[in-house]
Amino acid sequence: MRVGSFARVDVGRPRRTGVPEVILAEGKRPDQVVELLQALHDDGQGALVSRPGPEHTRALLYARAGGLPIRFRASGRVIELRGKLPRVRGSGRVAILTAGTADIPIAEEARAILEAVGVGVVAEFDVGVAGIHRLFRVLRRTERLHPRVYLVAAGREGALPTVVAGLVRAPVVGIPTSTGYGRGAGGAAALGAMLQSCAPVAVVNIDGGVSAALFAIHLLSAGRPRSSGKPI
Amino acid sequence: MRVGSFARVDVGRPRRTGVPEVILAEGKRPDQVVELLQALHDDGQGALVSRPGPEHTRALLYARAGGLPIRFRASGRVIELRGKLPRVRGSGRVAILTAGTADIPIAEEARAILEAVGVGVVAEFDVGVAGIHRLFRVLRRTERLHPRVYLVAAGREGALPTVVAGLVRAPVVGIPTSTGYGRGAGGAAALGAMLQSCAPVAVVNIDGGVSAALFAIHLLSAGRPRSSGKPI
Amino acid sequence: MRVGSFARVDVGRPRRTGVPEVILAEGKRPDQVVELLQALHDDGQGALVSRPGPEHTRALLYARAGGLPIRFRASGRVIELRGKLPRVRGSGRVAILTAGTADIPIAEEARAILEAVGVGVVAEFDVGVAGIHRLFRVLRRTERLHPRVYLVAAGREGALPTVVAGLVRAPVVGIPTSTGYGRGAGGAAALGAMLQSCAPVAVVNIDGGVSAALFAIHLLSAGRPRSSGKPI
Amino acid sequence: MRVGSFARVDVGRPRRTGVPEVILAEGKRPDQVVELLQALHDDGQGALVSRPGPEHTRALLYARAGGLPIRFRASGRVIELRGKLPRVRGSGRVAILTAGTADIPIAEEARAILEAVGVGVVAEFDVGVAGIHRLFRVLRRTERLHPRVYLVAAGREGALPTVVAGLVRAPVVGIPTSTGYGRGAGGAAALGAMLQSCAPVAVVNIDGGVSAALFAIHLLSAGRPRSSGKPI
Amino acid sequence: MRVGSFARVDVGRPRRTGVPEVILAEGKRPDQVVELLQALHDDGQGALVSRPGPEHTRALLYARAGGLPIRFRASGRVIELRGKLPRVRGSGRVAILTAGTADIPIAEEARAILEAVGVGVVAEFDVGVAGIHRLFRVLRRTERLHPRVYLVAAGREGALPTVVAGLVRAPVVGIPTSTGYGRGAGGAAALGAMLQSCAPVAVVNIDGGVSAALFAIHLLSAGRPRSSGKPI
Amino acid sequence: MRVGSFARVDVGRPRRTGVPEVILAEGKRPDQVVELLQALHDDGQGALVSRPGPEHTRALLYARAGGLPIRFRASGRVIELRGKLPRVRGSGRVAILTAGTADIPIAEEARAILEAVGVGVVAEFDVGVAGIHRLFRVLRRTERLHPRVYLVAAGREGALPTVVAGLVRAPVVGIPTSTGYGRGAGGAAALGAMLQSCAPVAVVNIDGGVSAALFAIHLLSAGRPRSSGKPI
Amino acid sequence: MRVGSFARVDVGRPRRTGVPEVILAEGKRPDQVVELLQALHDDGQGALVSRPGPEHTRALLYARAGGLPIRFRASGRVIELRGKLPRVRGSGRVAILTAGTADIPIAEEARAILEAVGVGVVAEFDVGVAGIHRLFRVLRRTERLHPRVYLVAAGREGALPTVVAGLVRAPVVGIPTSTGYGRGAGGAAALGAMLQSCAPVAVVNIDGGVSAALFAIHLLSAGRPRSSGKPI
Amino acid sequence: MRVGSFARVDVGRPRRTGVPEVILAEGKRPDQVVELLQALHDDGQGALVSRPGPEHTRALLYARAGGLPIRFRASGRVIELRGKLPRVRGSGRVAILTAGTADIPIAEEARAILEAVGVGVVAEFDVGVAGIHRLFRVLRRTERLHPRVYLVAAGREGALPTVVAGLVRAPVVGIPTSTGYGRGAGGAAALGAMLQSCAPVAVVNIDGGVSAALFAIHLLSAGRPRSSGKPI
Repeated sequence: MRVGSFARVDVGRPRRTGVPEVILAEGKRPDQVVELLQALHDDGQGALVSRPGPEHTRALLYARAGGLPIRFRASGRVIELRGKLPRVRGSGRVAILTAGTADIPIAEEARAILEAVGVGVVAEFDVGVAGIHRLFRVLRRTERLHPRVYLVAAGREGALPTVVAGLVRAPVVGIPTSTGYGRGAGGAAALGAMLQSCAPVAVVNIDGGVSAALFAIHLLSAGRPRSSGKPI
Repeated sequence: MRVGSFARVDVGRPRRTGVPEVILAEGKRPDQVVELLQALHDDGQGALVSRPGPEHTRALLYARAGGLPIRFRASGRVIELRGKLPRVRGSGRVAILTAGTADIPIAEEARAILEAVGVGVVAEFDVGVAGIHRLFRVLRRTERLHPRVYLVAAGREGALPTVVAGLVRAPVVGIPTSTGYGRGAGGAAALGAMLQSCAPVAVVNIDGGVSAALFAIHLLSAGRPRSSGKPI
Repeated sequence: MRVGSFARVDVGRPRRTGVPEVILAEGKRPDQVVELLQALHDDGQGALVSRPGPEHTRALLYARAGGLPIRFRASGRVIELRGKLPRVRGSGRVAILTAGTADIPIAEEARAILEAVGVGVVAEFDVGVAGIHRLFRVLRRTERLHPRVYLVAAGREGALPTVVAGLVRAPVVGIPTSTGYGRGAGGAAALGAMLQSCAPVAVVNIDGGVSAALFAIHLLSAGRPRSSGKPI
Repeated sequence: MRVGSFARVDVGRPRRTGVPEVILAEGKRPDQVVELLQALHDDGQGALVSRPGPEHTRALLYARAGGLPIRFRASGRVIELRGKLPRVRGSGRVAILTAGTADIPIAEEARAILEAVGVGVVAEFDVGVAGIHRLFRVLRRTERLHPRVYLVAAGREGALPTVVAGLVRAPVVGIPTSTGYGRGAGGAAALGAMLQSCAPVAVVNIDGGVSAALFAIHLLSAGRPRSSGKPI
Repeated sequence: MRVGSFARVDVGRPRRTGVPEVILAEGKRPDQVVELLQALHDDGQGALVSRPGPEHTRALLYARAGGLPIRFRASGRVIELRGKLPRVRGSGRVAILTAGTADIPIAEEARAILEAVGVGVVAEFDVGVAGIHRLFRVLRRTERLHPRVYLVAAGREGALPTVVAGLVRAPVVGIPTSTGYGRGAGGAAALGAMLQSCAPVAVVNIDGGVSAALFAIHLLSAGRPRSSGKPI
Repeated sequence: MRVGSFARVDVGRPRRTGVPEVILAEGKRPDQVVELLQALHDDGQGALVSRPGPEHTRALLYARAGGLPIRFRASGRVIELRGKLPRVRGSGRVAILTAGTADIPIAEEARAILEAVGVGVVAEFDVGVAGIHRLFRVLRRTERLHPRVYLVAAGREGALPTVVAGLVRAPVVGIPTSTGYGRGAGGAAALGAMLQSCAPVAVVNIDGGVSAALFAIHLLSAGRPRSSGKPI
Repeated sequence: MRVGSFARVDVGRPRRTGVPEVILAEGKRPDQVVELLQALHDDGQGALVSRPGPEHTRALLYARAGGLPIRFRASGRVIELRGKLPRVRGSGRVAILTAGTADIPIAEEARAILEAVGVGVVAEFDVGVAGIHRLFRVLRRTERLHPRVYLVAAGREGALPTVVAGLVRAPVVGIPTSTGYGRGAGGAAALGAMLQSCAPVAVVNIDGGVSAALFAIHLLSAGRPRSSGKPI
Repeated sequence: MRVGSFARVDVGRPRRTGVPEVILAEGKRPDQVVELLQALHDDGQGALVSRPGPEHTRALLYARAGGLPIRFRASGRVIELRGKLPRVRGSGRVAILTAGTADIPIAEEARAILEAVGVGVVAEFDVGVAGIHRLFRVLRRTERLHPRVYLVAAGREGALPTVVAGLVRAPVVGIPTSTGYGRGAGGAAALGAMLQSCAPVAVVNIDGGVSAALFAIHLLSAGRPRSSGKPI
């Protein structure tokens, strides 16, 4: 679906892959984001918007006042265009952990995406490794719920995903966050540590809460036949 | 379990996490690797050895001649100590793709680990993006098998996982490989591209075939109660 | 031609190389840019200004009010001093593609430069690789016009130039753009991927829309005798 | 065309893009390279092999003794499988320059590829910038031949492409070479300088003589209808 | 000499090394800079202040109004406390060149320092390498003055010092400047190129106009006995 | 003390700082190392040699055969010249931990230095974080001995020092080791993680077992008056 | 102790390790910091807050007006919640040095933490290495006090810790500071130099004044039995 | 002067700049180096060869046996073709210092170049900063000779040039050397520290002994009229 001269939306993807349309606001003009959502809405589609800046938020508030069915999730970091969104069927929960308090906004981004498509989330925050005994109690609780995947956000030295992956049954996806200062700041040290993890951890980019959530949706959708959507 | 003064094996992990013991030979002395395997064998355990150098291989050939039940898999890049290994139960296949011919050894490492614990693997090699139409035929074939996860190895510009993740239902784990030359050599460009992927891809370290396979085993084992193994 | 004590303009270059004078505003004081344009105008020359900041734009608006024949192109990112500019003679079109919506401003920069010297441009935006089938339709259309060169702007994982170069007849110049976040942000991952491309791609610097356009003008002008301009 | 389980050759590419099949030997086993060439030969195709190591060369010498029609070009850095190769039709010469003596092997790689498809090459070596007056004489000579593109190889500070691009009519493709020592060694400084060039230069990867040559072939082939080869 | 609890001034250095006291304002609080100058003034010393921010400038304007004998040089980037400053005796001129217009402020910084201690400066701006013939005329003029050292500021690809060092008799000190964009921005590419220069160039840090000037003062003062100042 | 024209030994340092003379063999010619030791021996001094290559070891074996009183410690990675070495007086033990088996050689380097000056060492190896419960038992044992400092060597993700520093009373010095592969290899990820540690960890350079040991000797010697050795 | 859903405080740590609770404000919302302090206060605990931004300071001023017993230390860079804090018993002083004036704020951070738990501090500022004789006088004075550890903050070339560690008896902890410009700015050069130090120096992260202070508290507390606090 | 098809020698440079021809062997084939020297010899020129590998040395020994007047200097790291070399006239000494023993080979490279053109050199080795008092005695001695420039080689933390530049009258050129290990190895930390030096130091590339020597020759030759050699 072409929108103006500036965008082509791959409307078959949700049916093909089970993953909702997520529009990255960063780098797009506010009027482009609104026009995109309007076009999707006119087509009956739902969608999600990530990383809106204040100017996107303002434009979308106007659009909502003008009738576009928009909902702000997770402290406004994820915005939902109500409409047809893929539903993740069946059971299967996702556990989201953070090492510190500063990692919570990224974890909330992931949670918002997951809840928008109907996935059950269990979240525990600030369970970091400098006081490692706190972690055991938390993991005992989450393991009882047999989550299908752990999304573990950590900044600074980024050790939490490694420790978790040595203790639980489900796969661990590490999300390095851009906390910290000095050398290794901006998430670089955390990313490096997760890639070097001596336990099996897969990693998304720094602050990649949205990517981690979409990966989890793929994971929960896999093994089922595709509801088509053409290619391939 | 302590082995000499140089190692402690976490014998509960296989039962706890469903993942087999994998001993990284790189960085260990050949006699240490042999002593480790002997101790595990005496305890009735099986295990896998990754990244053996020629000197490890030689030491293990001697040990095999001396009765240690060892099997060389995947052109010798993964070595199996026969014995008790966790089995991944139930259905669920893993698809392994490579972008080029040079990525095959890393893919074979992953395949060897997966097959050692009974996972069904479907592999397709040299399906890279400069001649993108070749990919469609391959994916049509693999999608019919409803794999639970794709492990996609690519070096150079590392674009294949992104393209695959836009077309299939299962989650895609990217494995950057250390091919290429000049700037971005050694897998750096491929890793960067996979982390920046505009489709949801999770990544393991460069040449991380073993990590990707263990992540896949976690993924196939999740959602099932732990067969204990104590902590947590 | 000396301008004040701060600049020397190589007025022979347009005739020598076929390429128009482009003044990089970034790093120059607004009054210096105006003085430069005035001197060129007094000499009968035309010129282009790239990367003007708001303070340059303001100064140039004043100058235009004062009679300097200035034209704002491409949402103001390229400014033209009307006057004698080299003309690219003969046929020969340039195709400009972008992977995403966020890459459009850089593509527009290139288009503005090209159109200022009379080159025909065909542009298609947001044809990125995560939904690769969208690309085929676009390329079929552009290939029918036999472009002499493709300028392909892409950020994030930067895979589009590689895919295009495997499918078309004309040479592909990759323009990495400074989109994306986390590791590889600012265009670093895209640049790395394009340099590692397994299809033949030549690359300009990150956000180098102007360089790519000038390179294309060289390309369209080549094979013709120089209209002198002295050295060499 | 599938070769064993390890390769898929895109046999339509030469007709589609005008560019010959170039097999990168680096990273492939010698027997894989031989098997690839044999399969292409059986199909009537010609091809080129780049970056052969001593073990590839040895295997190919055997294969030649066994009847495979192989020719060693450019001090053995490019190997040609005689057979059907695309021909670049019409006039149009390529100028190849190097800044120093150490850059010559990379320039020879480019020349070998170009000559294999019938392109006329004019080469001048060791015309670097520390003694800049030497350059003028050289450029006066090459400009008289109206080359369609300049391929300019330079290591160390990598300034030659910039200087050339300010003086000639044809487009300049910079090839950074991995000469030099200390900081910026391995071609990093030269690559950085070419990307930052204040004259319009497009760049290939470090030591990318083959890429530059293939880019030049694209350039010489452009503007002509494709002789098909299916997609797109 | 101790100033408050926050500074110790090495008052012997000017006599010992011939170099004036230069106080780097950046990183110091405005009140600390004023207190330092006041203490030096009370002691009869002169001094220079580099890299003042707007808040330092404001504080120093107040101080001047209060009687501190301050002089703003070079568009305010260097501030002089009038008083006893070392004088460079004898002949010996310094040539300062810049590649572009954007490099001028850094060159002016060097000029201000040199002129404050009585060194004769000859400056030529915007003589960069993309249009190399412009350089010859300039150098012919400066060489006639037999400068003792060339300070050559260049950003982007940083090639000018290399070209100059191949043509002149005096030593060339390269000053990379933080111009440019994309990869190698902030002066990184220019610094790399100067370090890799195939002509003998010594380099100061990016934007190190002050360091280059002080190095030149050392150079002009050398060979003369020290006027003591104790250690060593 | 001057040795030949190539070395000056600071013979006062041991008395001044309490730290033994350690000669880094790496970068010195074998004959220089032997001559240094001979000169020290003639002066009645003892010393330690670190990072000997095979050629240094060979030369020192000859020297020992010739009467120089040399002792090989820690699998030959530290060599002791018997003679006057500072003794660390009083109680105070040092705990040395490693995360993995591959980190042991670096830990042994530290142990050899410490034991040479009479420090009591308690060492525990392979107690890494992927199976974190193994660590508790170990730390309970070492804490009972009230060590004055922990030296904790870890490669890969380098998380062990952080976890230890959250649990024990003594200061933790992290030693990143050059294990691991892919991005962050060579100890870079471990170093980054330790610097970003959210528990208070001080760090030495990668593979800096000797530095860590000397730092520990300083720590054990502090608070006592200097036995002079002149400056300061 | 859980605080809201966003934090878990490890209240046992002070007793276990002797180190006070330090809350990093950076990355936390102001209301979260206040809620944390309130909860700790309600529990009778004291704590310290580091790196408060203006918005945290404002929120804490309100909270203080509302009765929370808060004290601003060290120009407001460290904030103390009065209450139960661990006391470092016995003698033992810490020496804090800075190379320049710009490093003082980081040194003050360390001093504030140390004084809050009752440690005696001796501080000397601006004793850097370009005028090395100034250092001797300072060290002679501090050595007479037999400090247990030196914390040495330095930016730019970061040489001071190396020089000090060659002269004194106590261990030296280097604190690189984020001063300087050009290459190596932001503390990178200083960190690199300290890690490469040829004297035994342990290092904390750039601007890690708080980490250095906590490390020193560990150091002064070591050798004493733990006052429990449970794990381990 | 053209040599074969592979080299152009700028025979005017010695007269123009006062600097001898130095041929970098690294990157050239041994037969090319011999052919170059033969051609220069036939023309009556002298020259120097730097960084010869064993294969160059072997070829040159053969050439010498065949009558080419070659002399090996500085442990064979610099080779002299006897013949016409520029002479540096007048007084003016160069002081060369090294921080450690491992830096001596680089210092010897510089010395060999300088002595070949008749410059007086005073050298002092192993005067590094960890034991700073040793330096004073050395500098007192060298300062008495009024050197015109100091070349100071240092690896590891690279602090020596900074300390020297704060104490002497002549300019200081830092030569970072590729000693050290871990982060900052290969001379990176030393280079960074010298660029960040808070005393005025100009820097050449890592291991740039030859560049430093040529820079010194420029310095000693400056201020004199050029003996022509044409351009400029």
